[in-house]
Amino acid sequence: MIKIGVIGYGYWGPNLVRNFAETKDAQVTFVSDRNPDRLKLVRSRYPSINVTENPVDLINNPQVDVVIISTPVSTHYDLAVKALRAGRHVLVEKPMTGTVEEAEKLLDEAARAKRVLMVDHTFIYTPAVIKIKELVADGSLGNMFYYDSVRVNLGLFQHDVNVLWDLAVHDLSIMDFILGKQPTAISATGMAHLEGQPEDVAYITCYLQNNLIAHFHVNWMAPVKVRRTLIGGDRKMIVYDDIEPSEKIKVYDKGVSLSGGAEGVYQLLVNYRSGDMWAPHLATTEALKTEAAHFIDCVTNGTHPQTDGEMGLRIVQILEAADASMAKKGQPVELV
Amino acid sequence: MIKIGVIGYGYWGPNLVRNFAETKDAQVTFVSDRNPDRLKLVRSRYPSINVTENPVDLINNPQVDVVIISTPVSTHYDLAVKALRAGRHVLVEKPMTGTVEEAEKLLDEAARAKRVLMVDHTFIYTPAVIKIKELVADGSLGNMFYYDSVRVNLGLFQHDVNVLWDLAVHDLSIMDFILGKQPTAISATGMAHLEGQPEDVAYITCYLQNNLIAHFHVNWMAPVKVRRTLIGGDRKMIVYDDIEPSEKIKVYDKGVSLSGGAEGVYQLLVNYRSGDMWAPHLATTEALKTEAAHFIDCVTNGTHPQTDGEMGLRIVQILEAADASMAKKGQPVELV
Amino acid sequence: MIKIGVIGYGYWGPNLVRNFAETKDAQVTFVSDRNPDRLKLVRSRYPSINVTENPVDLINNPQVDVVIISTPVSTHYDLAVKALRAGRHVLVEKPMTGTVEEAEKLLDEAARAKRVLMVDHTFIYTPAVIKIKELVADGSLGNMFYYDSVRVNLGLFQHDVNVLWDLAVHDLSIMDFILGKQPTAISATGMAHLEGQPEDVAYITCYLQNNLIAHFHVNWMAPVKVRRTLIGGDRKMIVYDDIEPSEKIKVYDKGVSLSGGAEGVYQLLVNYRSGDMWAPHLATTEALKTEAAHFIDCVTNGTHPQTDGEMGLRIVQILEAADASMAKKGQPVELV
Amino acid sequence: MIKIGVIGYGYWGPNLVRNFAETKDAQVTFVSDRNPDRLKLVRSRYPSINVTENPVDLINNPQVDVVIISTPVSTHYDLAVKALRAGRHVLVEKPMTGTVEEAEKLLDEAARAKRVLMVDHTFIYTPAVIKIKELVADGSLGNMFYYDSVRVNLGLFQHDVNVLWDLAVHDLSIMDFILGKQPTAISATGMAHLEGQPEDVAYITCYLQNNLIAHFHVNWMAPVKVRRTLIGGDRKMIVYDDIEPSEKIKVYDKGVSLSGGAEGVYQLLVNYRSGDMWAPHLATTEALKTEAAHFIDCVTNGTHPQTDGEMGLRIVQILEAADASMAKKGQPVELV
Repeated sequence: MIKIGVIGYGYWGPNLVRNFAETKDAQVTFVSDRNPDRLKLVRSRYPSINVTENPVDLINNPQVDVVIISTPVSTHYDLAVKALRAGRHVLVEKPMTGTVEEAEKLLDEAARAKRVLMVDHTFIYTPAVIKIKELVADGSLGNMFYYDSVRVNLGLFQHDVNVLWDLAVHDLSIMDFILGKQPTAISATGMAHLEGQPEDVAYITCYLQNNLIAHFHVNWMAPVKVRRTLIGGDRKMIVYDDIEPSEKIKVYDKGVSLSGGAEGVYQLLVNYRSGDMWAPHLATTEALKTEAAHFIDCVTNGTHPQTDGEMGLRIVQILEAADASMAKKGQPVELV
Repeated sequence: MIKIGVIGYGYWGPNLVRNFAETKDAQVTFVSDRNPDRLKLVRSRYPSINVTENPVDLINNPQVDVVIISTPVSTHYDLAVKALRAGRHVLVEKPMTGTVEEAEKLLDEAARAKRVLMVDHTFIYTPAVIKIKELVADGSLGNMFYYDSVRVNLGLFQHDVNVLWDLAVHDLSIMDFILGKQPTAISATGMAHLEGQPEDVAYITCYLQNNLIAHFHVNWMAPVKVRRTLIGGDRKMIVYDDIEPSEKIKVYDKGVSLSGGAEGVYQLLVNYRSGDMWAPHLATTEALKTEAAHFIDCVTNGTHPQTDGEMGLRIVQILEAADASMAKKGQPVELV
Repeated sequence: MIKIGVIGYGYWGPNLVRNFAETKDAQVTFVSDRNPDRLKLVRSRYPSINVTENPVDLINNPQVDVVIISTPVSTHYDLAVKALRAGRHVLVEKPMTGTVEEAEKLLDEAARAKRVLMVDHTFIYTPAVIKIKELVADGSLGNMFYYDSVRVNLGLFQHDVNVLWDLAVHDLSIMDFILGKQPTAISATGMAHLEGQPEDVAYITCYLQNNLIAHFHVNWMAPVKVRRTLIGGDRKMIVYDDIEPSEKIKVYDKGVSLSGGAEGVYQLLVNYRSGDMWAPHLATTEALKTEAAHFIDCVTNGTHPQTDGEMGLRIVQILEAADASMAKKGQPVELV
Repeated sequence: MIKIGVIGYGYWGPNLVRNFAETKDAQVTFVSDRNPDRLKLVRSRYPSINVTENPVDLINNPQVDVVIISTPVSTHYDLAVKALRAGRHVLVEKPMTGTVEEAEKLLDEAARAKRVLMVDHTFIYTPAVIKIKELVADGSLGNMFYYDSVRVNLGLFQHDVNVLWDLAVHDLSIMDFILGKQPTAISATGMAHLEGQPEDVAYITCYLQNNLIAHFHVNWMAPVKVRRTLIGGDRKMIVYDDIEPSEKIKVYDKGVSLSGGAEGVYQLLVNYRSGDMWAPHLATTEALKTEAAHFIDCVTNGTHPQTDGEMGLRIVQILEAADASMAKKGQPVELV
């Protein structure tokens, strides 16, 4: 039985506690939060869980094998390092850290401590994203041309991070998982509209190898909710609409190709193909449930998590580069 | 009766001829096209219209008061200059010219010739765009925050221009009309995927004064057709979906504002407002019909067209800057 | 503090317990269910609630002021009568009883016992239905022409009742509330497709006074989920789509009228009006929460519930008439 | 070359003339209309076509091999009989005649004259309907359970016929083609809301063999346009939405079946299957073009049309029975 301590019982923490409480071979033993009212809520819901306002008490308690960190981004690094040094396995909210430097140091700590470090990039565990990964990986889409995502709505303002670190982080992790490649360069633009608040609308372009281009649009101030990704290859194209209740993925047998004409290069012809559409049936499993089981499995068997610290680092690298580019109105930033 | 000659009877020319043929006080007297088969088609449809393969014959014919140019972009400048020098009024397809230099020289020619120079930015004459302009102009939206447009589908490849000059040109003209301001800087990114072909997917960010940001997404290789613009102000927000058959414009009484809390700057509160949605009834007039009547009116009364040469120039300035930025992976380009 | 006993902890019971547990001035003290596993679930969730397999124990327990009946339809009458005779107030699931005879006798019992009898027609307490009622009641729609509802999906088969008693019951209650009139005649059709199972697809037409017609389409075997009601008046028309996440009600300023022409009766003109559409903002309150507070209020103050026994009777009258008509392939049945 | 005369150049006539004018081996030689303004329009568009106000002149003119009748329903029978007796082949608008009696007599006339009699049930020639027919015919859907269609919008009032004869006629012909069976009984309901005008909203239930049920909803006074048909079998189900621009047909791998449990009849289990969705690519051919070629082919080769007089008769039988049932509030009418 893996004993779990959860730091932070704010917006997302209750989902973590609920899911891990129902995970096989796992037991939530401790919750900490700086706000006593939140701890009162924990006690009323789970009388058997210990609570504390001090996360260090939780980390050091022998009743804790694993620490889950669900606190503001700026605190991730310190808490995660403390937990690793105390010999705990760590699952940390996304983004993993607030800077690339912290991310790299955290990877070192995890390696040194020989403990599992996993990042809660939840979307990677949804049936829709797993299915898309499958279709891209098995070559169904052909050569990849573009990846284009939109994630907008009238959302909560995060006072500590801008809209990239709050919303684009989801889509960057999905792209990382699906394409399996890190961008070579980034250009980002964006704007803050409320005084003293961070950027609320932003756009990122990622350049990848082989003329693959990815683009991300995020906005906290849109009147409608949009969660739509277009993924284009030369054989098939996908529309992934996360708001659709039942047909989240549509695969279009549409494409475009170039064929040399009889009379040589001046006769190049662009051919369009228009075909069937297919919406694969998807399971309705809750992603966090799948993720929780995966994490417990990694801890138990010492295996490597899907959303590991290396992935966490890659996402933070893109976000940091995007911030730098956005500050200079789109000037491109190379990623090593 | 204004006598009209139309150069180019390809994709768009037939719409121009049909609409001007039905416009009051106007008469299409001449059509030219380099392809004799197209001219045959003109004759069968309009036995009374003269045809020629040579556009210069049309321009110089005394039966022509006005020349409409509906040919590839690279030919616009030469034909328009010839027509102005021959004393003709000119309506030219968008984009007005292929370079800013040509655009500026064309404006000079029109001024010298004292003739009307109008650009066929058709969308400006649609009931939907006119209604949005009204709502922005009368302050209904409050302070403008952002303008975001998407225009994608599995489209025709234009061999002579890239996707910006083919598709973004529409949205840039709509933005110019609605916001009434020229951007101060541009960042653009994009990619070509077919060998020997121009960019088929592209993104432009325009920076305008007062933290207003505009973004354009165009793509010739999308599996679905999307024509959607989000326009956000601090009082109201608009969704303009040109594919919707009957509710093209939705006005949301949603907004966001910042209010100082009692305890000073650390207590800033972001307030969200969620309210009614309203879809104004729109007339179903064909835009080109409205535009044709407006052009004939300008020619007859010597008045200034809505989509004049200055507007044509502003759009070409943005497109040229976007090409330059796109060639350098998003490096920003200032507009004077 | 009103003490509440809930009979039946199957599909809907848990929602009732949860909502009443959080209702002011109310306390759930007892739950009964014939299945011991369900009672075990109650104990784990609510250690302070008493449980029993025998509903009569619950009804007669002095710790119970109010009995909520959430069991199969065939048992409603017996349980409700027992509860009323024991002096309890009663909230019973819809449909109130399995026959009109039972419904009428139940009303008598409630009157004799001087206790509140309410039926759980939950939809009547949704913000959407309340708003539609308002718009119809204040004359915004003008003279009412038709009411047309569709409620279909791949649903659960109810072995004890057919699709009318399972699904149409919702829409009949909404119609009753919005129009405030009982039909004068009913014609219904339908079909059973699985051997030994009740009708799975059915249609009801209700004739009301003043040429008002209402129609209901219900189906347990549709590939897609549809929950759409059209309500037409001569001044405005409503589309109520319960699946829409944010714009459930759309009010169309469309209508049709007849005007006598100058030359008399042969010149009758049908005029169409096409105007704006408006989607009023709706609160997101959970209907069952509103309903629970309303019920407790009625019990406390002896006031009359919105969804009272008389309404329950009217719905059962329509359902019984529809069954009779359906058995004779649509032959109309008069309602007294 | 088949020479064609078209009677009636109102709403639909121009489409007929345009399509037959472009059909191989066909030539439109004559058009008649009682309104001289309509004839003037014909002359301006087609200077080579002869025109007359008198349909009998057209019918008897030796320049006419085939007569197409596109006039109000009440005139179909007389004109068609005259044309057949003059030795012409006949294509008549739907519904074929205004009564079953006329329909039967017209079939006799055609048989006696040995001429082709075809009805313009255009939908039968659409790629969508042809594809559905294919899927039903090859058993993809399994045993057929139900057919449910909705065709509503704020439409034109037809002063001479009610909404059944105007709108349901389309769906009845589609059902006839797809299911290939005539109903055994009909129940219909409906209502007229404007004084002196026919029914504007109506519902038909058709009972077919083997527990197959079909239902039709038509309405001239709906605020939105709906053209949706659900077709359910025990293996697959179809949603046919004629308003969708590109995915008109969606085939759901969803179904329901009954399996006997181990313990006998009381253990019957209803099993649901939830699977992929598939939208077959459809050609974009104009239906009337396909139909025109088919008609000319039948006339030339003496073959039997798809939408022959027998089909026309079956549709009129249903409509007449529906009128009779509607007049008696849904009382069922048997079809022989």
